[in-house]
Amino acid sequence: MRLALDAMGGDHAPQVVVEAALRSARSASFDIALVGQPQVVEPLLAPHRPLPANLAFEPAPDVVAMDGHPGTAVRQHPQSSIGVGIGLVKAGAADAFVSAGNTGAVMAFAVLKLGRLPGVERPALGSVFPTERDRCLVLDAGANADCRASYLLQFALMGAAYMAGVYGVCNPRVGLLNIGEEPTKGNQLALEAHRLLRESGLNFIGNVEGRDVPRGAADVVVTDGFSGNVLIKTAEGVGEAAGNLIRQQVTARWHYKLAAAVLRPAFRAVARRMDYAEYGGAPLLGVPGVVIIGHGRSNARAIERGLAVAAQAVESGVVGTIARSIRGQASAPAASAD
Amino acid sequence: MRLALDAMGGDHAPQVVVEAALRSARSASFDIALVGQPQVVEPLLAPHRPLPANLAFEPAPDVVAMDGHPGTAVRQHPQSSIGVGIGLVKAGAADAFVSAGNTGAVMAFAVLKLGRLPGVERPALGSVFPTERDRCLVLDAGANADCRASYLLQFALMGAAYMAGVYGVCNPRVGLLNIGEEPTKGNQLALEAHRLLRESGLNFIGNVEGRDVPRGAADVVVTDGFSGNVLIKTAEGVGEAAGNLIRQQVTARWHYKLAAAVLRPAFRAVARRMDYAEYGGAPLLGVPGVVIIGHGRSNARAIERGLAVAAQAVESGVVGTIARSIRGQASAPAASAD
Repeated sequence: MRLALDAMGGDHAPQVVVEAALRSARSASFDIALVGQPQVVEPLLAPHRPLPANLAFEPAPDVVAMDGHPGTAVRQHPQSSIGVGIGLVKAGAADAFVSAGNTGAVMAFAVLKLGRLPGVERPALGSVFPTERDRCLVLDAGANADCRASYLLQFALMGAAYMAGVYGVCNPRVGLLNIGEEPTKGNQLALEAHRLLRESGLNFIGNVEGRDVPRGAADVVVTDGFSGNVLIKTAEGVGEAAGNLIRQQVTARWHYKLAAAVLRPAFRAVARRMDYAEYGGAPLLGVPGVVIIGHGRSNARAIERGLAVAAQAVESGVVGTIARSIRGQASAPAASAD
Repeated sequence: MRLALDAMGGDHAPQVVVEAALRSARSASFDIALVGQPQVVEPLLAPHRPLPANLAFEPAPDVVAMDGHPGTAVRQHPQSSIGVGIGLVKAGAADAFVSAGNTGAVMAFAVLKLGRLPGVERPALGSVFPTERDRCLVLDAGANADCRASYLLQFALMGAAYMAGVYGVCNPRVGLLNIGEEPTKGNQLALEAHRLLRESGLNFIGNVEGRDVPRGAADVVVTDGFSGNVLIKTAEGVGEAAGNLIRQQVTARWHYKLAAAVLRPAFRAVARRMDYAEYGGAPLLGVPGVVIIGHGRSNARAIERGLAVAAQAVESGVVGTIARSIRGQASAPAASAD
């Protein structure tokens, strides 16, 4: 198995990516193709030569800025690390692409170059969200701001396949993000999606509210890309605000500071539990290939987790499962008409 | 000034409401009409008789269940505490209605009995959201699941008037909840609303993301009732999950427990800072009257804050300001066409 890794993607690239590539190559069983600008990446690799046998450098002369426009990136930077990395997947020279770069650009390159799996209406970005129990997948996390109910049904099918394949969740509980528990609650989209999901054959547990998601009420939470993005970013913001408030308070008096020093490992355990870096990045689902997008602020550990998650997705054949699941959905009405 | 208070509303009613009414009556300068079922409320008032001169009991024979359907409530329970309380506002016998009861039922009674201010397309529920700096108003918080851009513009006008009148925020910063900073980001609704807000004459600071809201990036955050509800409930859920995780961790070892005991006042200060109870409930804006809806889990302190906020809204003439603001908006195109 060979994974393409974007050396240029992320706020702390290329340093943390090179670090993650070297560490993963030493400990993991997959091959890594590190894709990036030679003049930037080569000097970072030089002190580590000879490189591990399962780590190779793939030159990409260009780069996409973290805040660049996705459409412009695709048109003007085909030889960027993202363009070249996705190209390796397209050519069969890599099984997956992992990047902590410009999310929109990775999605745009992936959809343009790889296309969509047959029958997929819209590829979706999933976000792995920490819960009190363990984690859930929220999708769409922002790829599709306006959605139809039929998209949400497909998000549910794809998300369930991903959670089963990558995280070993058996018969994942699918919840529909909504603003009330009753099936009659919500906007037009949610009302229609509720009906489709109820008839889907999935383990649909009904509506879940924003409060239920962090509690771990569902393994897969489906919604449109606008609400999904609001959910994820609000959770991030509240976590940060809570952290800042606690820091302010516990440093306000000297005896607090002493007590806080004792509790440091406990605080750290909580922060790690709520940290995106532990969860391995956001999968782009519905394309013929494994594409994992890390948080822009990814550290080396987050990139390593992204590689491990990508390997697990390849290993478990998630793309094939999704393709079969979407095919099954397409043939379901015909079958029931027999 | 006379405020009608729903004795029957909230998970801990009527006990905490009676407690709040007695305490507020003793300390505040307004009159309170406590509305509820005589057989339930009278026994709680009996030990405190004679009541303060500014506290009167108003009997309402019926009650709306916390989980009752709003439409059913309006049709079948007109003599409920909510129906009678809103009736007092309608009749001019009270200046405001405060309830921690069934949110949908309070909104339904208010809109049905009081109607809308002239020109208001949709009344909105505002939610006062704690931020690192102080607080902001998120609206709509769930009254209107499907919205047009013109509703969002009115939400902004009404929310700005409320934050200025009740919280003394001068020239409130209005943000549009969105999934990116650039004006070209978002769903169709957000794109159109962005254009309207830019031309509104309000202090529009552009798009704000879920992460920016807890940080205090805006004083008024406008969005549709679906996304607004997701934002508020997600924040609540993350706060609870963080609290639970911290509790688990700091009680895991005996020396952690000791340190946590030292830090208890600091933890409590953080919890209070992030607690809805401190912020005085959710205003229903766009109706001709002050209506404040408290969280179902309100304690006596939250109810007291709700009364104080209602008094401030009456005192500052928020309803009149909103009426003028909406009127000004209606006449603006005509003026510019001259």
